[in-house]
Amino acid sequence: MNLPNSADAALRRRALRVVPGGMWGHQHAARLPSAYPQFFARAQGARIWDVDGNAYIDLMCSWGPIILGHHAPEVEEAVRLQSERGDCMNGPSEAMVELAELLVDTIPHADWAQFQKNGTDATTAAVTIARAATGRRKILVANGAYHGAAPWCLPSLAGGMAEDRAHIVQYEYNDVASLHAAADWADGDLAGIVASAFRHDLARDQEMPTAEFARAARALCDATGAALILDDVRAGFRLHLGGSWEPYGVRPDLSAWSKAIANGYPLAAVTGCDRFRDGAASVFSTGSFWTAAVPMAAAVATLHVLRRGEAIPLMERLGTRLRQELANLAEQNGLRIRQTGPVQMPMLLFEDDPQFQRAEVFCNAALAHGAYLHPRHNMFLSAAHTDDDIDIVLDAAGHGFAAAARVAPPAE
Amino acid sequence: MNLPNSADAALRRRALRVVPGGMWGHQHAARLPSAYPQFFARAQGARIWDVDGNAYIDLMCSWGPIILGHHAPEVEEAVRLQSERGDCMNGPSEAMVELAELLVDTIPHADWAQFQKNGTDATTAAVTIARAATGRRKILVANGAYHGAAPWCLPSLAGGMAEDRAHIVQYEYNDVASLHAAADWADGDLAGIVASAFRHDLARDQEMPTAEFARAARALCDATGAALILDDVRAGFRLHLGGSWEPYGVRPDLSAWSKAIANGYPLAAVTGCDRFRDGAASVFSTGSFWTAAVPMAAAVATLHVLRRGEAIPLMERLGTRLRQELANLAEQNGLRIRQTGPVQMPMLLFEDDPQFQRAEVFCNAALAHGAYLHPRHNMFLSAAHTDDDIDIVLDAAGHGFAAAARVAPPAE
Repeated sequence: MNLPNSADAALRRRALRVVPGGMWGHQHAARLPSAYPQFFARAQGARIWDVDGNAYIDLMCSWGPIILGHHAPEVEEAVRLQSERGDCMNGPSEAMVELAELLVDTIPHADWAQFQKNGTDATTAAVTIARAATGRRKILVANGAYHGAAPWCLPSLAGGMAEDRAHIVQYEYNDVASLHAAADWADGDLAGIVASAFRHDLARDQEMPTAEFARAARALCDATGAALILDDVRAGFRLHLGGSWEPYGVRPDLSAWSKAIANGYPLAAVTGCDRFRDGAASVFSTGSFWTAAVPMAAAVATLHVLRRGEAIPLMERLGTRLRQELANLAEQNGLRIRQTGPVQMPMLLFEDDPQFQRAEVFCNAALAHGAYLHPRHNMFLSAAHTDDDIDIVLDAAGHGFAAAARVAPPAE
Repeated sequence: MNLPNSADAALRRRALRVVPGGMWGHQHAARLPSAYPQFFARAQGARIWDVDGNAYIDLMCSWGPIILGHHAPEVEEAVRLQSERGDCMNGPSEAMVELAELLVDTIPHADWAQFQKNGTDATTAAVTIARAATGRRKILVANGAYHGAAPWCLPSLAGGMAEDRAHIVQYEYNDVASLHAAADWADGDLAGIVASAFRHDLARDQEMPTAEFARAARALCDATGAALILDDVRAGFRLHLGGSWEPYGVRPDLSAWSKAIANGYPLAAVTGCDRFRDGAASVFSTGSFWTAAVPMAAAVATLHVLRRGEAIPLMERLGTRLRQELANLAEQNGLRIRQTGPVQMPMLLFEDDPQFQRAEVFCNAALAHGAYLHPRHNMFLSAAHTDDDIDIVLDAAGHGFAAAARVAPPAE
């Protein structure tokens, strides 16, 4: 069963002439299974439509931003009201203050907030603030972690230089000994430790942080005066509104947020504790659209909805059901799969699938039956998903597993 | 005459608790004359309203982005139509292809385009593409030029490190000998030369590029294979739709765009020639909101309006009138001023005003009479400004000059 794709193919041909490689970045269809569309026409709730009119239940949520579903009414109403007044002006609107107050009220470690556009802006600002506040240079970063697309953290080396990472020291996530070794290596020059909310590296099992690891990072920062920086860009607001390490009783000094903060409107934020307030004020950081009022009004509305407390339990319930039934379906098809990390950010990998061939066959077949999944990146649920949507995903996944079961195992 | 400011003052007090320093970046009111508001409530056409209800004819245009006026009907209609369909989705919409085609059709040097959010994203991407394509490292940058707020180009050193600028070599804008000396110093490792559309450094006279300088930069890049990178973020689409160096007959290899490209909606772009297409495709560069459809639809609509050809001549006519009448008013008040650079991006500095005291008194008084000007940064006209608006600005400036004339000259 092949989905119609002539409009998508025509747009790809046009794009190839006027965009290098036809597309760039994490949404490039060349990085996706062969049947996946590149171009989208419409989105509503948990559904997306490609330019050929094919509809899918979306388990990527625009790679994270859509947490309440597309066109969430409360968010759209706030956007409409703010848009009528003004968006990009000579300075911020009242919405900036409301949003900062709301973040400080919601996030236990936060005494203040600063705003940007990209998640990369927020992680980079946090690192810069840590350096400015401590007067030191070394930043500890987990091997394989993604913290954005700036020179200090780019996953690709094209166009980069050795100097970009001169003071980046690697450790292994959840490996306390490696964290201590990296801190020892930084000896007296440790500005900060960056940790993702959990280990969500591409193409490998997700790992929740161990309490031992989180506490060791906190203790190292307490002992040295370095900043504990939580990269909550990807996971933020899906696990715990107060920050993803709240359940572990470990509070960072600085957190980077973006993606889900405004339900798809472009915004990022750094929150921090009072110890880093002066450092944050000393750094010159700015952008033409950073104080725009509409994304901030959208974030205020998004946070108000999230604070009602229904969204995360709903995503957890649906994610738990999805995980259990996917496991059953895989077993019925004689397939061994691994599902890891938080249920509301599903990750599904096949055993014995080093080239992701099974995963791609699985995804292509599921796509043809109406579910947009990812073969090697974590996925995302939203508060707009329903049990009916999960039914569609499971039906599609059943077709996916049946197809994947027909893939020959890799040669020994 | 003091404007009401109690709402602004109240918001500043609230902000001081939850935002480091109460605000950050180029829009921080601490960087502005004492009477200036920090917070804005509304904007329409060429007018802005602060949170106390004071209205101003705006000569900052949100520091550049607003080129057709706030709520330009064609742009808002395109935004409404695209918003109803979808904005932040799993990939781009058709608007991305339309916009890339439109840029390639409008900008003679452009064979392709890539999109980002911040102007800094675009300048950084251009530098990275130049390095990736040439396999070299050195980037020539004019002393004092602003190219964004990334570590390689930050105007402040707080939180930065020597390594951030390891391969940045400075030259003096419009000084061909210094450009050659910098290129010699880069000897065999020259990846690119970055030049602003014209010299628009903070707090100094603007300077148009000399044809000799522009040609020398082009010739150096031709001789060495380096990329000539035009930073058109600030000036783009206000001087010449094909790029600000078109009138000089000098075409860059790569251009960085942002600010006015989508009339205030958040978008940036790099355009480039075919020689750098593969380099651009090789760099991993991405952001969560970079393919969002609404800003691209806004950019398509903005460019369609600009391509009618009325906007730039209108801004030139109004800017010429403003410059001439400001010169007359200053003279009538016995003041010596300097007005430099393109008329549609006005820059007004006072002679014998090293601490900008006269300029601040001038701006405060003009503000009280309904004109929002800047004492030491270039300003911006838009296609929404009218002769009536310029009348108001000139009346306000008359009050400003009268006040400035009463400022004692600096002590010898």
